[in-house]
Amino acid sequence: MPVHPEAPIEISAYNWVPDFARGHVRDLRLRWALEEIGADYRVRLLDPRKEKTAEYLLAQPFGQVPAYWEGSFSLFESGAILLHLGEKDERLLPRDADARKRAVSWMIAALNSVEPSVGELGTIDMFDPDAEWGKQRRPAVVENVQQRLSQLSEWLGDKEWLEERFTIADLIMVTVLRTLQHTDILASFGNLAAYVARGEKRPAFQTALKAQLADFVNEPA
Amino acid sequence: MPVHPEAPIEISAYNWVPDFARGHVRDLRLRWALEEIGADYRVRLLDPRKEKTAEYLLAQPFGQVPAYWEGSFSLFESGAILLHLGEKDERLLPRDADARKRAVSWMIAALNSVEPSVGELGTIDMFDPDAEWGKQRRPAVVENVQQRLSQLSEWLGDKEWLEERFTIADLIMVTVLRTLQHTDILASFGNLAAYVARGEKRPAFQTALKAQLADFVNEPA
Repeated sequence: MPVHPEAPIEISAYNWVPDFARGHVRDLRLRWALEEIGADYRVRLLDPRKEKTAEYLLAQPFGQVPAYWEGSFSLFESGAILLHLGEKDERLLPRDADARKRAVSWMIAALNSVEPSVGELGTIDMFDPDAEWGKQRRPAVVENVQQRLSQLSEWLGDKEWLEERFTIADLIMVTVLRTLQHTDILASFGNLAAYVARGEKRPAFQTALKAQLADFVNEPA
Repeated sequence: MPVHPEAPIEISAYNWVPDFARGHVRDLRLRWALEEIGADYRVRLLDPRKEKTAEYLLAQPFGQVPAYWEGSFSLFESGAILLHLGEKDERLLPRDADARKRAVSWMIAALNSVEPSVGELGTIDMFDPDAEWGKQRRPAVVENVQQRLSQLSEWLGDKEWLEERFTIADLIMVTVLRTLQHTDILASFGNLAAYVARGEKRPAFQTALKAQLADFVNEPA
């Protein structure tokens, strides 16, 4: 149980989000990675409905979560923080240079080629489900998502992970794909649905998910 | 002039795109980085209107450009390729570990926190300018872009680059921001407009831009 109030690593997370976002806020990626390597961390809980302090914006200029601190050193963006953790621990990122760089290609693909269209669908379905523009736009966004997932499914084939072994690329790709679970898109790609389930079954994921959920207060919006 | 038919580094690019995309296709990021370090490269030109070959999809599973080859080793995603080039050459990415990791935070921020909303605006304005959904959606997207740019402008202040010196983070951020030049959004943040101009004034950028434009044929769509 790496959540420890005296841990040298600190991450930020929210103390409240709407129900649909619970279990999907991006500090989950850090908690998951830290659980995979058994690294202790403590959590700085923020209220997403309040203005961020100037001190917080120094660590996270866009006012989002997560930020990451190790003493006076800070990082932001889940992808950059996972790269940092991957450099610390081979279980997250191979030491062989070519294998490492392939994993980085896949991690950036998750963030820049898959997440934007998946996120656009989430905006329509979660934040603005009754808007007329969303009804008109949705079919094209679903088509974009399906195209990406079809290409990803083709690549994955019957492999367990995107490259030879589990890396931070799989960790991020799984967290991106599981935000589609309110739709039937993922189920139509059997190997991708199994891939997401494989990620979610990892004990480190389970512990991380519980820890994120436990940090939310249950007050109304 | 690093474009050289015998170069060991090969990148992919398109031989045609619509006018609005010329000068903005992502192989520009690689050409720019390679010019910054004076590394020779050759170009594999693809027709975006044709199906990609199975061989190409092995290097770039989403069928996009750019892909990157060095002998039998290949990478994809401009961010991952720039990280690889940054590891090769200090002029793109500092050797000091903390400075390097801060640059990586900013590079991923450009790709995952700034580009998605900027890209959503580009989709509305360039691909579907007369659609009713776009007219309804556009004000909220402009607001998202302005919020990000306001935070970025606050961070940049009167600094020349995002951190101590020019890195791959600036290279990508500038290419993301300059796709806003069809709007008046960038002009309302004086320091960001100057930042983009500073990037575009670099001789390596100018050579890279000319090289991308020279590879387009002028046939009709």
